[in-house]
Amino acid sequence: MPRLVMKFGGTSVADLDRIKNAAKQVQREIDNGYDVIVIVSAMSGKTNELVGWVNQTSALYDAREYDAVVSSGENVTAGLLALTLQESGTPARSWQGWQVPINTTSAHSSARIMDIPEANIAEKFATGMKVAVIAGFQGVSAEGRITTLGRGGSDTTAVAFAAAFKAERCDIYTDVDGVYTTDPRIEDKARKLDRISYEEMLELASLGAKVLQTRSVELAMRYKVRLRVLSSFEDVTENSGTLVCDEEDIMETRVVSGVAYSRDEAKMTLVSVADRPGIAAAIFGPLADAGVNVDMIVQNISEEGRTDMTFSCPTDQVTRAEKALADAKTLGQINYHGLIADKDVCKVSVVGIGMRSHAGVAAKMFRVLADEQVNIKVITTSEIKVSVLIDRKYMELAVQALHDAFELEKAD
Amino acid sequence: MPRLVMKFGGTSVADLDRIKNAAKQVQREIDNGYDVIVIVSAMSGKTNELVGWVNQTSALYDAREYDAVVSSGENVTAGLLALTLQESGTPARSWQGWQVPINTTSAHSSARIMDIPEANIAEKFATGMKVAVIAGFQGVSAEGRITTLGRGGSDTTAVAFAAAFKAERCDIYTDVDGVYTTDPRIEDKARKLDRISYEEMLELASLGAKVLQTRSVELAMRYKVRLRVLSSFEDVTENSGTLVCDEEDIMETRVVSGVAYSRDEAKMTLVSVADRPGIAAAIFGPLADAGVNVDMIVQNISEEGRTDMTFSCPTDQVTRAEKALADAKTLGQINYHGLIADKDVCKVSVVGIGMRSHAGVAAKMFRVLADEQVNIKVITTSEIKVSVLIDRKYMELAVQALHDAFELEKAD
Repeated sequence: MPRLVMKFGGTSVADLDRIKNAAKQVQREIDNGYDVIVIVSAMSGKTNELVGWVNQTSALYDAREYDAVVSSGENVTAGLLALTLQESGTPARSWQGWQVPINTTSAHSSARIMDIPEANIAEKFATGMKVAVIAGFQGVSAEGRITTLGRGGSDTTAVAFAAAFKAERCDIYTDVDGVYTTDPRIEDKARKLDRISYEEMLELASLGAKVLQTRSVELAMRYKVRLRVLSSFEDVTENSGTLVCDEEDIMETRVVSGVAYSRDEAKMTLVSVADRPGIAAAIFGPLADAGVNVDMIVQNISEEGRTDMTFSCPTDQVTRAEKALADAKTLGQINYHGLIADKDVCKVSVVGIGMRSHAGVAAKMFRVLADEQVNIKVITTSEIKVSVLIDRKYMELAVQALHDAFELEKAD
Repeated sequence: MPRLVMKFGGTSVADLDRIKNAAKQVQREIDNGYDVIVIVSAMSGKTNELVGWVNQTSALYDAREYDAVVSSGENVTAGLLALTLQESGTPARSWQGWQVPINTTSAHSSARIMDIPEANIAEKFATGMKVAVIAGFQGVSAEGRITTLGRGGSDTTAVAFAAAFKAERCDIYTDVDGVYTTDPRIEDKARKLDRISYEEMLELASLGAKVLQTRSVELAMRYKVRLRVLSSFEDVTENSGTLVCDEEDIMETRVVSGVAYSRDEAKMTLVSVADRPGIAAAIFGPLADAGVNVDMIVQNISEEGRTDMTFSCPTDQVTRAEKALADAKTLGQINYHGLIADKDVCKVSVVGIGMRSHAGVAAKMFRVLADEQVNIKVITTSEIKVSVLIDRKYMELAVQALHDAFELEKAD
């Protein structure tokens, strides 16, 4: 039997009615002739509640206990979906991460999947089971402890299963009907894309378009998993949603495909650090060890042997970053006069594979923002994107102005 | 180091403040010189919520999926308590059932613990860990599926750990300060007992005094585990709570120690079944196979080769019982004219080891109920208890009248 992976996000399994709806979608694909592997998230809100409890209990928590706590929501929805399918006569059973087992690294809270043995589940498919329901987001380390894959990790679980089980496609059911040129809540002229390349999706995902976890897109790209994003609340046809696929499978190529933003950015500035060889390593080594995801980095011009170093990281990692830097200072590894954290910033980016062959996108972006009187604090670029850090109050304005300027509302 | 097992019920870990309070109790015992194994229930209300979802999803659910769903609440509290202890500097970690592993039978939803290997946890104690926090209520079957031990199963987890780890005592922290002569919510003259024998506690537990799960008392009796029931909301001294112990350790022996009741009883009557050898086996075999816990059984006098068979079972097993009997009828295993389920009954019992040497307790109980105009529907007796099934509306009246008549408010 050909196999299909279907993933249902938190809003798609938010209550028993929605779980019934998900079961119907699964049933349709069984009727289409597939053996189905379903990955489920926790009911929407549940994981946030658990994360909140952990944070209230301990600011610098033991990530192994964090994982044991926050992984529990997926166990509930996996069991409930299996029961719902059984109730309508479909042979189904649930698996938790350790039962498959989904073997991961020991990097708790952001573990990576190493291996998913096929045997356990394949044996059940061979003896009549039609649906394997898998608790997403979780795995198990070599030490036998529960790990989680980071927020949005269920997407990665889904792609990893699609690769391991050679699935025909990996359908990600969510509360939006596809990938848009930008967030429709901010720009009502935002347009749904029928197809998008892995590379662009990767930039959009990592830039804060919360449709897919970055890691899941990386995995899909590496293993050539055809990934479809679609709504669990609309009738599904062959052309529903957005297909994330190889660049070669996309006919039309535009210079810019989308405008992305990320609210949860903080800008941190180390004031007056000694400007000597190895200083960047001395600063960013301890931050990496502390699990701080540093994104943009800017170094000011040096004056009298000292310089300012600015970087951005997720807002919720500011405390952790401050501690890591203070510790490094205490140990004499670095020296600085002050540390300024600015949490009122955001990141706005334009993305498109066409940039590779078109110059002038960055210049146009800066001009548009200047016309709107938006001050740019930090800039970074890659082959297919340009990102800027700006004051958070200008976020909507910047997204709308850029969407207009690059004429993203127009169909190809 | 001597070891102590402490178990915290749902109300004792109902929120983060209560979990902090539990951590303080644990800290006190560490200061007293113990290595501590803590067993936790789910936050109060959580397991009921999960059970509700399963029941709404599927009336005749797959017990394996039920267990996977309802066991998740304990994982949350185990991790949170470990984090809370760590936060105050106490080396602690959590274990889920499959991690220990707590090996159980495959009788899902009412599994029995077969074996708890000491190695994993003992190794951690040997290397500086002070507290092992165990998710109660759950285990793992030989097939690698999650099992649960039945409602109140965390008590059994606690006693099983106390036996396996040769703990000095097993303290059960709950929302009452001990075992009472009857439920103080019904009879305000109810008095706390300082000590009670395993045998009496067993009868009280199985009769609906919800302080301890029956199975946990059986286990404690078999392995001579000294069991203490006490409140997590009061200062703890050496004499707090009620000690459940060997009969020999109790000086005073009264004829009657307590009056118990159970609201969740249903009376079922099979009308006109053929009265032939083997009929009881033909009826109660299928009920046992369907997991119905039959309690009292009464058979009417036979007339013309037919008889009525009455039995009681928990209210929530009535549907299951009806189905099992209907199936047995379809298969020709039994034949009956009707099946009457009466859910408006309750069970009231008097319990005391002194009954062994004192006659007349049953006669006195029946006279007290008769004086109150309460009609008795079914009677059962054991060496140390007398139980009656009566209309539920008379429950409070019966409990109060019996408590008075046996003068249970008086201290020994």
